[in-house]
Amino acid sequence: MSTELHELIERLRTFADARDWQQFHSPKNLAMALSVEAAELMEHFQWLNEQQSQTLSATQRQQVALEMADVFLYLLRLADRLDVDLMASARRKITLNEQKYPADQVRGRSGKALQAD
Amino acid sequence: MSTELHELIERLRTFADARDWQQFHSPKNLAMALSVEAAELMEHFQWLNEQQSQTLSATQRQQVALEMADVFLYLLRLADRLDVDLMASARRKITLNEQKYPADQVRGRSGKALQAD
Amino acid sequence: MSTELHELIERLRTFADARDWQQFHSPKNLAMALSVEAAELMEHFQWLNEQQSQTLSATQRQQVALEMADVFLYLLRLADRLDVDLMASARRKITLNEQKYPADQVRGRSGKALQAD
Amino acid sequence: MSTELHELIERLRTFADARDWQQFHSPKNLAMALSVEAAELMEHFQWLNEQQSQTLSATQRQQVALEMADVFLYLLRLADRLDVDLMASARRKITLNEQKYPADQVRGRSGKALQAD
Repeated sequence: MSTELHELIERLRTFADARDWQQFHSPKNLAMALSVEAAELMEHFQWLNEQQSQTLSATQRQQVALEMADVFLYLLRLADRLDVDLMASARRKITLNEQKYPADQVRGRSGKALQAD
Repeated sequence: MSTELHELIERLRTFADARDWQQFHSPKNLAMALSVEAAELMEHFQWLNEQQSQTLSATQRQQVALEMADVFLYLLRLADRLDVDLMASARRKITLNEQKYPADQVRGRSGKALQAD
Repeated sequence: MSTELHELIERLRTFADARDWQQFHSPKNLAMALSVEAAELMEHFQWLNEQQSQTLSATQRQQVALEMADVFLYLLRLADRLDVDLMASARRKITLNEQKYPADQVRGRSGKALQAD
Repeated sequence: MSTELHELIERLRTFADARDWQQFHSPKNLAMALSVEAAELMEHFQWLNEQQSQTLSATQRQQVALEMADVFLYLLRLADRLDVDLMASARRKITLNEQKYPADQVRGRSGKALQAD
């Protein structure tokens, strides 16, 4: 695991320990909390059109950045509880995606169009 | 942004460019995709009890690690499109949480119990 | 509760009883399952633009209808387990929304624009 | 479609028309909003254990009932926009599930255990 991610993971573990919150942090509960935070992030975009979602105000961008942080922090907590190396998994998944979606075969077509192949 | 996260962000950008998929990657759509992946991660835990969620088989753990990677990769793509420094936002959010939930006032109580204060 | 919804609720209860699945159907787990199904519904739309989402093919529409059914069925199961009258709650919520969003004050503005008031 | 659901659908359509909100109610956006509401419902249960989720206080139950209403109302709005008969789809899906999960073959086993067959 990267040194920087490890530093965050350690801070989160200390945070949970100091509050006796490890008891609530089963992987099941952390996955729920992560999903709730992902929805809170998405909520910022739900009534915007795609163009508007690319041109947020400074205030919106700051709020969105903190929602992204919430998702990230629960992801790191979950990685800690399950002893998953998030950087290694991410690299592995990109490699799998590169093999699954050869550029010259999928160019300009989105997921659903591909599934209809 | 950390060097290691930057390396992933660059790989994802190259991946999207090579497939002409930037057109689909509005922040709105990426937030939706992230939320869908968070649900796929959660789905692994939905019929497990909390104890079972802590003791996954090697196969389950590997599947879960790849779902976590999917969430992480969309989070990094979104950070790229919105020019958000994910590490800085995460550090800022932990600091905010440390101030919001003083250890000696919240020890052993979960979120909903706190909101009822 | 409406007679027709009651008929579905009874069928779902019989279905769960016959399979000894009530043990998995805690409100917590049903809320998770409902959220997973909502994400599966959303996934059909994630790479479509808004216009495309209004003009689904017959096949897409049929798939989407079954995903909507999944959401509905878990909602009815949850209503059964929590003894909630879904029709009464829905009527009450519409009335609350009518009071919260007076037509002449919110016309043509979406949720986020309203929250910025 | 059932008479009672039709009454709700009509009220929601009138509500949206009076506020000029049909423009925001593309199926894509409604699916997002439904997923956000499903997460808000789930949030009530995230730090409860399964037993606690079955024994809500009167206040919690009332809050949960209104979150369930939000999910239901967006589901009905989406059914209206896509011209989907929700009752018919629900009946069809139960029948499909009855065929997919024969009681004598799946008794007492949850979804993931079944997928491992």
